[in-house]
Amino acid sequence: MANIKMGLFGLGTVGEGIVKALSKAKNANAEIKRICVLDVNKSRGVEVDKNILTDNRNDILNDKEINLIVEVINDAEASYEIVTEALKRGIPVVSGSKTMIARHLPELIELQKKHDTALLYDASSCGSIPVIRNLEEYYDNDLLLEVKGILNGSSNYILSRVFDHGQSYEDALQTAVDLGFAESDPSFDIDGYDALYKLIIITVHALGSYVAPEDIFTYGISHISDFDIRFAQEKRVKIKLVAQVVKINQEQFTMFVMPEFVNKSKYIYSVDDEYNGVVIRGECYDRQFMFGKGAGSLPTASSILSDVVSRHHGYRYEYKKMGYSDCPSYTTDVLLKVYVRYTDTDIPRVLPFENITESYQSENVNYVVGEISLSNLIKEREILMKPDVFVINIPRFFAELDN
Amino acid sequence: MANIKMGLFGLGTVGEGIVKALSKAKNANAEIKRICVLDVNKSRGVEVDKNILTDNRNDILNDKEINLIVEVINDAEASYEIVTEALKRGIPVVSGSKTMIARHLPELIELQKKHDTALLYDASSCGSIPVIRNLEEYYDNDLLLEVKGILNGSSNYILSRVFDHGQSYEDALQTAVDLGFAESDPSFDIDGYDALYKLIIITVHALGSYVAPEDIFTYGISHISDFDIRFAQEKRVKIKLVAQVVKINQEQFTMFVMPEFVNKSKYIYSVDDEYNGVVIRGECYDRQFMFGKGAGSLPTASSILSDVVSRHHGYRYEYKKMGYSDCPSYTTDVLLKVYVRYTDTDIPRVLPFENITESYQSENVNYVVGEISLSNLIKEREILMKPDVFVINIPRFFAELDN
Repeated sequence: MANIKMGLFGLGTVGEGIVKALSKAKNANAEIKRICVLDVNKSRGVEVDKNILTDNRNDILNDKEINLIVEVINDAEASYEIVTEALKRGIPVVSGSKTMIARHLPELIELQKKHDTALLYDASSCGSIPVIRNLEEYYDNDLLLEVKGILNGSSNYILSRVFDHGQSYEDALQTAVDLGFAESDPSFDIDGYDALYKLIIITVHALGSYVAPEDIFTYGISHISDFDIRFAQEKRVKIKLVAQVVKINQEQFTMFVMPEFVNKSKYIYSVDDEYNGVVIRGECYDRQFMFGKGAGSLPTASSILSDVVSRHHGYRYEYKKMGYSDCPSYTTDVLLKVYVRYTDTDIPRVLPFENITESYQSENVNYVVGEISLSNLIKEREILMKPDVFVINIPRFFAELDN
Repeated sequence: MANIKMGLFGLGTVGEGIVKALSKAKNANAEIKRICVLDVNKSRGVEVDKNILTDNRNDILNDKEINLIVEVINDAEASYEIVTEALKRGIPVVSGSKTMIARHLPELIELQKKHDTALLYDASSCGSIPVIRNLEEYYDNDLLLEVKGILNGSSNYILSRVFDHGQSYEDALQTAVDLGFAESDPSFDIDGYDALYKLIIITVHALGSYVAPEDIFTYGISHISDFDIRFAQEKRVKIKLVAQVVKINQEQFTMFVMPEFVNKSKYIYSVDDEYNGVVIRGECYDRQFMFGKGAGSLPTASSILSDVVSRHHGYRYEYKKMGYSDCPSYTTDVLLKVYVRYTDTDIPRVLPFENITESYQSENVNYVVGEISLSNLIKEREILMKPDVFVINIPRFFAELDN
């Protein structure tokens, strides 16, 4: 096994973390030969030899000595170009770009097979928690029933400030931005897309099925109001942004990202602040809970480093479950029980509920609790996105499956 | 990759679980060809073809069609004979026998190398929690600093009954035996040996070092008294039986199994009942927490099944960390802060404390709190084992390292 000579794309927060982590990992047998950045003259938070910096991606792609590409840039389009080009040249890649991977995974799997090379991306889902690796390698049988968790640290940090520290949503959001837990445009996190992309990647390794982002119900926390928060607190539950993929029977599974009322008995209730937590449920092992830092410079870098060292030992994802004889298929034909809070929009009239079990009206605010199919939630997304409306999942139909 | 044809040794609780789990795992590509049991006529909790039962181990060892041996028997001596014999014949083995593995691991590693075959044993440590696999594959770099956890479900169940349900220790022990969480002779669990053997295996995969059982301080919970329990409750902490291996600097690590005062801020505080929980701490990723069922028929069987399926894909432990250039070495030359409760034995006089920071005497019971070296705890084990004495670790010197 030759030493790893890396070409690194990106020297932002994660890229700098990789440089630091690598300096501590003396037995990694890996060195960074070249780093491609947008601006070679920008000052950096780590010491790097200026001579290895370049702004020309071909300086890495054409370097025959480089036997592994590590890609941690923020631009999903550029990431796609670099990763596909590297795979086509047979160069293995470790990537942390969840958006790019979630959007293009079927093609990326094909490229790995066609060019007999590897793409590893454990860092793309839940940072330092080895979710992908465990789903791929350890839960590599068909006993798996459900993966459910807090996959986005920024939105969880905000909700923690609200529920554990009594901050208003607006203040909590500002704190998150100030502390760097959320981007200055935090919509990617708080609207659920970060969690969605992670969930898509997780589902490929959990159940062997790829579902495209546009086919999945994704609903974030930006419409939450003080009324919703008080409603939850009175019932002694928290509101959390939960991503889940669940086998509903032997042939079918469903998946979605949305706020959920979480009670104290659930493992994810205690996943606070910027942490991530994932519950893996299976037929024989019941529930496994994995908890850790889901983002940040060094935690993400350590996950990248695990993939780098594994490549040194020839590791690749086999995507075994995609070849299973009885891969379950995706359905949105399931009933969810939801709470919908509204003011102006006439929710009971415009949303196609199967039934309504609770209904509350007042001068300022109204809500209903009722059953509605996931497919109708997707269909009526425009209504749900109106600024006076907020939807929260009430786990019930999955009661016997629930964490 | 040919299908797996298994020879199974043992059809007790775990063996029956394997038969059940395998019937659910349609894509495992594995079948049980022969089962070796002590009594072929005994009635079983699962349906098995009587014709595949045998009481002659050579019916499995000599069967050229059998390409994997799964060994889940209770007798450590017989387990050693079977596993070493199989490895010498080049037959890969999946084993759940922690006692045998912990005692003989260096020889078992040599045998795997010499005969170019594999021994997998994730089930031996924490049942369904993939601790070994993650330490071996994912935390496969030198960033790891500590593994600490609740590794024994029986003793944890007893302590949970005491701390969360107000039962006396004696009642809780009886409940555990009645429910099958502890053996009718529960000393293996409550004296810390079960946790010790798991810790030894974990340490090989965490830090690349093997330490023999007799060199490790192991102290269980059987001497706990109502006074100790009240003492902990007044300080709002729980007493838990904790196993830990900790790097104390770049060159050295220490390890031990003993009761510990655990406060609410620690992850393992919430590991209750028969569950196991492990905290993995590293330089870049901070703390990872893995939680799940550490024992029981189906959880253990699902772990065995994960190893079986991995063998189908050619997986083996590489024991990479044993070859690292700067493997840390084991030391007991560390100071611990401990609470020692006693009545008749004159603990302050007979135990070589470095210093004593608290001391309490009364008519019925006395205790001291002080610093003592781990090597002296090992040396004075006979004193600590007197029936009127009980020792509890107070995490302090590892304060900055602590979970």
